[in-house]
Amino acid sequence: MYSIGIDVGGTNTDIGLVSENGTIIARKNIPTSPYSDYHIYVKDIMEQINLMFSENNLNLSSLSGIGMGAPNGNFYTGCVEYAPNLKMKGLLEFEKEFYKYINVPVVLSNDANAAAYGEYVYGGAKGLQHFIMFTLGTGVGSGIVIDGKLVHGSTGTAGELGHCILIPNGRQCGCGRKGCLEAYASASGIVRTYCELRTDNQSQTSWISSSIPDSEITSLMIGKAANAGDPLALETYRRTADLLGLAMANAVTFSAPEAIFLMGGPAKVGDPLLKPLRESFDKYILDIYKGKCCIRMSELKDNEVAILGSAALIHLRK
Amino acid sequence: MYSIGIDVGGTNTDIGLVSENGTIIARKNIPTSPYSDYHIYVKDIMEQINLMFSENNLNLSSLSGIGMGAPNGNFYTGCVEYAPNLKMKGLLEFEKEFYKYINVPVVLSNDANAAAYGEYVYGGAKGLQHFIMFTLGTGVGSGIVIDGKLVHGSTGTAGELGHCILIPNGRQCGCGRKGCLEAYASASGIVRTYCELRTDNQSQTSWISSSIPDSEITSLMIGKAANAGDPLALETYRRTADLLGLAMANAVTFSAPEAIFLMGGPAKVGDPLLKPLRESFDKYILDIYKGKCCIRMSELKDNEVAILGSAALIHLRK
Repeated sequence: MYSIGIDVGGTNTDIGLVSENGTIIARKNIPTSPYSDYHIYVKDIMEQINLMFSENNLNLSSLSGIGMGAPNGNFYTGCVEYAPNLKMKGLLEFEKEFYKYINVPVVLSNDANAAAYGEYVYGGAKGLQHFIMFTLGTGVGSGIVIDGKLVHGSTGTAGELGHCILIPNGRQCGCGRKGCLEAYASASGIVRTYCELRTDNQSQTSWISSSIPDSEITSLMIGKAANAGDPLALETYRRTADLLGLAMANAVTFSAPEAIFLMGGPAKVGDPLLKPLRESFDKYILDIYKGKCCIRMSELKDNEVAILGSAALIHLRK
Repeated sequence: MYSIGIDVGGTNTDIGLVSENGTIIARKNIPTSPYSDYHIYVKDIMEQINLMFSENNLNLSSLSGIGMGAPNGNFYTGCVEYAPNLKMKGLLEFEKEFYKYINVPVVLSNDANAAAYGEYVYGGAKGLQHFIMFTLGTGVGSGIVIDGKLVHGSTGTAGELGHCILIPNGRQCGCGRKGCLEAYASASGIVRTYCELRTDNQSQTSWISSSIPDSEITSLMIGKAANAGDPLALETYRRTADLLGLAMANAVTFSAPEAIFLMGGPAKVGDPLLKPLRESFDKYILDIYKGKCCIRMSELKDNEVAILGSAALIHLRK
C-alpha cells in the first residue's frame, strides 16, 4: 500500500507518493499562490496524484490515505482554518473536498505536528512513546507525542511551544505578545540577537563586516561565521541556546518525554548551537528528569521531512 | 461496587471508602510519621479497610480497587520512589504489598495528579477531555488530562508545572533552581512577595501591623487583609496572579485544554487572586486559544478532594 503526503506551503505545494517503509517513490510540485479557490486547488492536486500513480504503473486502489501538513491545518475538522499566508481565504474544507474524488482517509494537521509524526513513523523517534519536536525556521513550531499519539488538544491546534513566553515583557513577537521563544530562536530572532550584540558590544570583534546593514544579515551568515570561530556569532548562539534549553526544560515538566528532537535551518549550524543547548538544558532541567531525556537532531532529510511527515499523518486514526 | 482512596501525607494517612457516585461513606485516619517499614504500614492500612467494610456491613468482594495519592507516587511502577518527606525510605513497593492481602487493582500517582483525576471522575471536569489542574499549597502541583487520560509521561512523573521556570535567574526555588512558578505562587511564595513589597514600599500602607516579623506572616493573613481591601495585600495577589496567569497561558500552548482548574488554600482567597488572574491569563494567552479555555475553581470539597482523587485513580487502566 502507498500513501500520499502533501505539504502546503505559502508559495509551493509538494506532493509525494510514499511507500510503507517511508521511501518517497515520486514527487510533484504545484504552485500554491495562484489559487484563491480551494476546490480547484484540490482538483489540480488530485490530477497530480493520478499522474504519479499511472507514471509508476500503480493502481489508485493501493492508496491507503492522504496526509496533509498545512499552516492552521486542523486535525479534528479536516479543514485549514484562516491561514494568514495563503491566498485561499476562510475555512478550506480539504478533507471533504478530497472525498469527492477518492474514498480513503484524509488527515490534516499543521506542519510542525506533521514533522513530529514523520519522525515517529519514519525517523529517529520510531519506537518512542513520548517526545517533542521543535522546528526552527521562519518561526518556531512544535509537535508533541504522548503515549504514541500526537497531541491536538481540545481545539485541534495544540503544540505551539514557539509561543511559550520565556521573558515576560521581553522581545516583541510576531504573534503580538512579548518574550515568546519564537522571538529569540527563529531565524529572524537569531539575526536580531546578533545585530543587538554588535550594536551593544562595539569592542567585541565579529568577522562579518560591520558595513553590512542589519537588514542584510541572515542566520545562515551568522551560522557560517560561528563555525569559523567568530566570537560575536558564537555568543549569539550561546544566548539562543540558553533560551531554547530553558524552553525545552520547561516542556519536560509537562510530559516527561524520552527525547526532544530538533530540526530546521537554524538548527543545522551544529555545535555552536547544540553544545551550549545541551549545557543549558542540563542547567534548567528539574532534578527528577535529569538524565532521562536527551536532545537529538531529526533523522529525516531536509527535503523529505515535509512529505514524509504529512504522509505519516494517515497513521493517526480519528 | 466501592473503591478505597488513600491519601498519603507526611504526617497523616487518610483512608476513605467511596461509592460509585463519589460519596465518601466512611473514613479512617492513621499517622504516617511513626512508620519506617512500609510492610507494616500497608498491613495497618488493610486493617482499617477491613474495619470500614465490616462497620458498614459491606463485603470486601464489593471492593473494585485501591487508589493511592502519594508524594513521588509512580503510576507505572506502583511504587513511591524516594519521597523526601516520608520516614519510610527508598523504594516503597505499595502495589506489590497490597496484592499480598487483596486481589484488586492498586493504582498509584502523585497527589496533584490524583486531585486532577478526582475532578475528572467526580468534580467539575466531568465530561471534559482536556484540562489542567493547578494545586496551590506548600508547593505548586499540577495534573494534566489529555484525551481523557492523565499524562504520566515516560517516567511516570510528568506534570510538574510548578517547576516551569517563569523568570530566568529569578527567585530561588526549593527545587534548587531559580524562577519557578512555585517560588511565586505557593503559600510561602505569596508571603515572600508580600514581605518584599512591604520592605520596598515603605510609603504604601498595609493593615497588617509592621511589627509582625516576616517569619510570622502567613498567606492566610495576607488573604484576609486583601479581602478587607489592604492595598499591599491586594498588590501581592496582583503580582502572584500575573505570574500564575502567564504559567497557565504557557500551559495552554502545550495541550490546548478546555479549562484550567485551580484548588488549594492560597486559591481560596477568591477575587483578590481570581480577578487579576483572569485578566493576566487573557493578556498572555495566544490569540488562537482566546475564548476557548477558561479558569475554574475545583468543585470538590477541600476535605474530600484527596480521598476522592485517590479513589478516582482506579479508573485509570494500565
